[in-house]
Amino acid sequence: MTSLDDLPIRDDLRGLTPYGAPQLDVPVRLNVNENAYRVPEAVALDIVQQLARALPDANRYPDREFDALRAAFAGYLGHGLQSAQIWAGNGSNEVLQHVLQAFGGPGRSLLSFTPTYSMYPLLAQGVGMRWVPVPRADDFTLTPQAVREAIAEHDPDVVFLCSPNNPTGTAIDLETIEAAAEAARGIVLVDEAYAEFAHDRSRTALTLLERHPRLLVSRTMSKAFAFAGIRVGYLAADPAVIDALRLVRLPYHLSALTQAAAVAALRHSDAMLSRVDELRTQRDRIVDELTALGYRPYPSDANFVLVGGIDDPRATFEALLERGILVRDVGLPHTLRITAGTAAETTALLSAMAALRAE
Amino acid sequence: MTSLDDLPIRDDLRGLTPYGAPQLDVPVRLNVNENAYRVPEAVALDIVQQLARALPDANRYPDREFDALRAAFAGYLGHGLQSAQIWAGNGSNEVLQHVLQAFGGPGRSLLSFTPTYSMYPLLAQGVGMRWVPVPRADDFTLTPQAVREAIAEHDPDVVFLCSPNNPTGTAIDLETIEAAAEAARGIVLVDEAYAEFAHDRSRTALTLLERHPRLLVSRTMSKAFAFAGIRVGYLAADPAVIDALRLVRLPYHLSALTQAAAVAALRHSDAMLSRVDELRTQRDRIVDELTALGYRPYPSDANFVLVGGIDDPRATFEALLERGILVRDVGLPHTLRITAGTAAETTALLSAMAALRAE
Repeated sequence: MTSLDDLPIRDDLRGLTPYGAPQLDVPVRLNVNENAYRVPEAVALDIVQQLARALPDANRYPDREFDALRAAFAGYLGHGLQSAQIWAGNGSNEVLQHVLQAFGGPGRSLLSFTPTYSMYPLLAQGVGMRWVPVPRADDFTLTPQAVREAIAEHDPDVVFLCSPNNPTGTAIDLETIEAAAEAARGIVLVDEAYAEFAHDRSRTALTLLERHPRLLVSRTMSKAFAFAGIRVGYLAADPAVIDALRLVRLPYHLSALTQAAAVAALRHSDAMLSRVDELRTQRDRIVDELTALGYRPYPSDANFVLVGGIDDPRATFEALLERGILVRDVGLPHTLRITAGTAAETTALLSAMAALRAE
Repeated sequence: MTSLDDLPIRDDLRGLTPYGAPQLDVPVRLNVNENAYRVPEAVALDIVQQLARALPDANRYPDREFDALRAAFAGYLGHGLQSAQIWAGNGSNEVLQHVLQAFGGPGRSLLSFTPTYSMYPLLAQGVGMRWVPVPRADDFTLTPQAVREAIAEHDPDVVFLCSPNNPTGTAIDLETIEAAAEAARGIVLVDEAYAEFAHDRSRTALTLLERHPRLLVSRTMSKAFAFAGIRVGYLAADPAVIDALRLVRLPYHLSALTQAAAVAALRHSDAMLSRVDELRTQRDRIVDELTALGYRPYPSDANFVLVGGIDDPRATFEALLERGILVRDVGLPHTLRITAGTAAETTALLSAMAALRAE
């Protein structure tokens, strides 16, 4: 039998294991920051109708420029954005990959402030570029000065700023993002995958785009639009940046089904954002009630909470799993990362955490 | 205004233009080798039902291992293949990209026999590897000896053999493929995107997989399954090869909609292949009738024909476009590439070509 070691894979892949959390079928899944709510019935119906309408032409290649979808994203984002400033991919990971293929690659470097989204180093490796992790402060916050110093020291080609940050929930303020955009000679991308869950949604890096042509803001439909299964990420930037991404995308990378489903869902953004509001309430409830129980949750602007003050995260993870609740151990000492669920799911989690505290 | 030249894009991208044929809305589109027939009504209904069934869980990430789809592909391909030998992506371009990310990359080389599929050099560039084009014989055929000599001379890390070959329609015989698999120290991939259109479908490189763990066979649903708009490519190989591809794929790269649509369509492979048979008839009709008209079509095992003996391809292209027929000028002297359409489309094409000959 042939094994992986017998094959001529790239040397830097040897010994690695595939990325991904376990996909376990348990009653309460709070481990991968999915939206706890299904797409509402009326929205789902609209989506199915649009899918049915797209199907007869599916023998033809899809619109390579996904014009209707780009217009829908521009409309949803607001801030005066035009279609020519929009890009999209199969999940924001693919969008980030396009950015690194265009502006990174061999001999170039990607800087981020850790702990942060664990895909960044893998995306950098995938295009043969160097990954430069710079540690955050103990409370995971960033300041304009810290960002300026890191950029001056490492002179990166690309900077990824995750805000709100995964896995800590920490928002980066606009002053700090602007400091990065001014300090960097290369591309600065703000990954706003969780932006809709922020306490103040209006404080988005989208407001800085006009002044900074090398600033990019990525988003995803996975979280706010409950579209994790449908794989739609997108990005707003200067039209010239979009031209650069066209050079590296595979032709027809967005299927006719993906385009149709996303366009349909974006017509219902008000309904989707009201679900986001419910999840924000649960997120704040997790922070408040776990604080009262003596845990030390970090402030969060995302749909999850990094909970500190856990003596033995592995034991707590297992004890929760026994109760049918799946959370995530992201490897930060004395913490677990917990996604905000529905009210009922959150109640189940909080009861279990209270019981574990009492033991 | 910022232009592409003002941005810090990778040096090897400067001056390039995005890949892709013009997407023109004309009555008879025979330019990008799409399946001329829509998915049959009954199949479309089944697909829509499966999409509707997938939608309620689309707030969750899709099955990262796409188990149901891999089982369906193994069943469709036959030849004793198991799920563990199957991989898939958003179009075969993405599958080929995964192969190059795992087994190619910076410092490595990809060899192909030209003219061939024009995405190969772009895929190689996208992962920073060297592209080695080796010219075919004048009639575009390949022999075991020619393949052995090219591999001995260039010692490539990866070899892509396109069979039937795009844009020439030329099949590569199994003896030649086996010669490549034996001669190469690296990966040999046979791109069988058009395999279902071959005169003898049983002569597939799938029959060689058991003896060659570094041999890979890729396919697509774009052509035989009329799924160009839905973006599903796939691959069969040794299970260890699949393990290698897991290391480079983006997590959750295949959406729940893509998985559901493909699984549904594969249940109707008999219906889809009967459409393929109709297209084979039209393909042969193009070869026969254009030969009778004095053109020199090359033998084809695909759903298109490379037609030689055209004095001025640009003029013929424009004259056909005036008649509402879009074909492809692939840049080979005195040729145009023409996709086999429905019987009516093919009649329109042949009438136009006869008229142009008479002028």
